[in-house]
Parts: sequence; C-alpha cells; structure tokens
Amino acid sequence: MNFTKLEIDNMDERFRAKLINSVSGYKSAHLVGTADSDGLTNLSVVSSVFHLGANPPLLGMIFRPHSVPRHTLENILETKVYSLNHINLEIVKQAHQTSARYPKAQSEFAATGLEEQYLDQFTAPFVKEAKIKLAMEYKQHQTIELNNTVMLIGEIKAIHLDINCLQEDGHVDLTKADSVCITGLDGYALPKQLKRFPYAKP
Amino acid sequence: MNFTKLEIDNMDERFRAKLINSVSGYKSAHLVGTADSDGLTNLSVVSSVFHLGANPPLLGMIFRPHSVPRHTLENILETKVYSLNHINLEIVKQAHQTSARYPKAQSEFAATGLEEQYLDQFTAPFVKEAKIKLAMEYKQHQTIELNNTVMLIGEIKAIHLDINCLQEDGHVDLTKADSVCITGLDGYALPKQLKRFPYAKP
Repeated sequence: MNFTKLEIDNMDERFRAKLINSVSGYKSAHLVGTADSDGLTNLSVVSSVFHLGANPPLLGMIFRPHSVPRHTLENILETKVYSLNHINLEIVKQAHQTSARYPKAQSEFAATGLEEQYLDQFTAPFVKEAKIKLAMEYKQHQTIELNNTVMLIGEIKAIHLDINCLQEDGHVDLTKADSVCITGLDGYALPKQLKRFPYAKP
Repeated sequence: MNFTKLEIDNMDERFRAKLINSVSGYKSAHLVGTADSDGLTNLSVVSSVFHLGANPPLLGMIFRPHSVPRHTLENILETKVYSLNHINLEIVKQAHQTSARYPKAQSEFAATGLEEQYLDQFTAPFVKEAKIKLAMEYKQHQTIELNNTVMLIGEIKAIHLDINCLQEDGHVDLTKADSVCITGLDGYALPKQLKRFPYAKP
C-alpha cells in the first residue's frame, strides 16, 4: 500500500508519529545518564543516537523540540558530560519506564530501580546493569531549522564493555551483550546476528 | 574491559573503525537508489539513516568525508531525489555487495542483480525486492566541521510498504518485512519483536 505526501500531511498526528518513527528502520537503544551541577541524576531512554565518525570517535543525538522539560539536554549543556548505556534484554521494561515524565527532583534511577554507577572520576552516572557503556563529552549542538529539533554531537571519552562482546578485529558483537534495538515510539526488538561479510570488491 | 580516549586515539585505524562503528549500537539498513541527470543509476548500502522528525517527515543521512567517489551524494545534489529501500533477509548479500567500488558507468543494480523499479513518476530508482520503500526529496545538507562528514536531510514524499507490515495505529512491524539492521562495518542482524510498551506514566 502507498501513502502520498498529502496523505501523510493530513494524517491523525499520533498515527503519523507512529508511522514515520517506525518506517525509517531499526534504531539504537540507549539510556542517557546525566546529572545537574548539584549532582541530581537523570536517566532517559533514547533511540536517536547515531554514528558520526570513528576518528575522532563522534556520536550524534537528536532532541525533539517541544518535549519540555528536557532535563537531559539541560544537564548536558550544564555539565558537558553524559553516559550512553546500551539497553539490554533484562532491563527493557525499566528502560522504557524512564520515558515517563517524572519531576526533575525525582531521579529515574530511583524511580525505575536501575542502579547508578560511577567509573573513573567521570561525573555523569552510568547504568550498572548495562553491558556496554560509553563516557561522552559534549562537543557542539545546533538547532535544525527545518523542524526545530536539536542535534547534539559528543565524543567518546571511554568505552566500558564486557570482554566477551569484543572480537579480535575490534568489532563488537552486540548479541553477546543482549543489546536491543527500537522500532517506532514503543517497540523493542532483539536482533540475532546473521553474518559478517568480507570487504566487498567489484 | 575498558578503552580510554588515549587508547582509542592510538589504536590501529582499522581496529578503531570496527570498534567505534559497532559500539554505538544497532543501525538501520537501507539501499539508497539514485540516478544522475542522464538516468544512469546507482545503488548503495547505508547504515547512517536516522529519524529526524515526523511532521514534516524528515530523515537524516551521514556521508563519510573521504570515500571518493561519492556517486550517491553527487546524484542527490544533482537531481534532488533519492529512494530509501529497507534491506531484508533475502537481499542481504546483494545489498552488501553494493559497497564495492564499481566505476560510475556500472550500475550496482546490474552488478548485483537487484531490480530497478520506478513508481509514480518518481525519477529515482527503487529496489523492487524491498518491502518498504521511501521516496525522498532533498532538503538541505551541511558539512560537520568536527570531522568533515556531510549530513544530508531529506523529506519523505511517499511511502510504499507491504500492507501486512502496517498495524492499526500506524506502527510498522519491521519483522513482517524481514528488515535487517547493521552492526559495525559489515555485520547484519535480524531482529525479533519483543514487545510494544504502553505510554509510560510516573
């Protein structure tokens, strides 16, 4: 079946949000850990983290324009650091629950039962239950004028991962970490590795 | 185990590329279909498409700085249109083969055996074997100065999908389309739907 641009424009808003958010394909699934300058922590599920480059190691992340209050973005701009923690099979339910609108004074760690972890003097909290964790440093952000979303770029300052995920050549086998991916606004899926292909030649 | 920023900086370049490309989590898996102004077609596997917003329906895509020649980017800038075609289980091998460096005169469609399809007067070629296809219109692009990658933003002008993928509320069940996702530079994975969660409340 087909949807034209006119049909997309005229859709019920929630139908369109679910359609467009899922039709672009599978998305990464992270918990972003932050703290404000008083040390009050925040944890938020995101599906908008994307690879931007390996050298320097950069990741992008998109923030919606009108999802006020945006504690995560405010904390990153205040402290310049954040953690990215892979959502795995065992913590999917708690991870999704972080999307509820808790007041700023209430940490999503305490609300969901996920455990704060601090590593190597890095001031943003990690999620202890995650098997792949990235310490991120803010580099820049900009507003995309087409729709007023904010794109934030951060650099990987440290990687913490279960050693059994790491293959000899540097490739991380995410299935060994039980990492999940996200579809649409509320769907979670567990991938099974199919194959790694050799470098393609004509 | 841990990698510090210093260790990442000093890594063998290929090890680092594989590590950083995979440690950010699962990525979407598309074939980008384009043609130049003479109608010569090009097809390229990409893992860098990301959701930017539902209204207007916008997707971003990242191009590496030095992967010359970049026929896909050149074609999009020349014609302002492109197609995004979900890679599914049946065409994974052919999809990966499009990453080989074919000369511009040789279309990856012919080289890999994937079939060109034209729908609704849209001038960019679709992949007939794909079950979810998006007609995209170029909106803008910019160079990210931190690493000279190019971020291109396009708008969804039409959606073509198998009707059995579409749920009543607009959510697209990608498992019904056998859509795959990508890890790292060369890994493909097939997700199994776990669950859709209700809107979370505190």
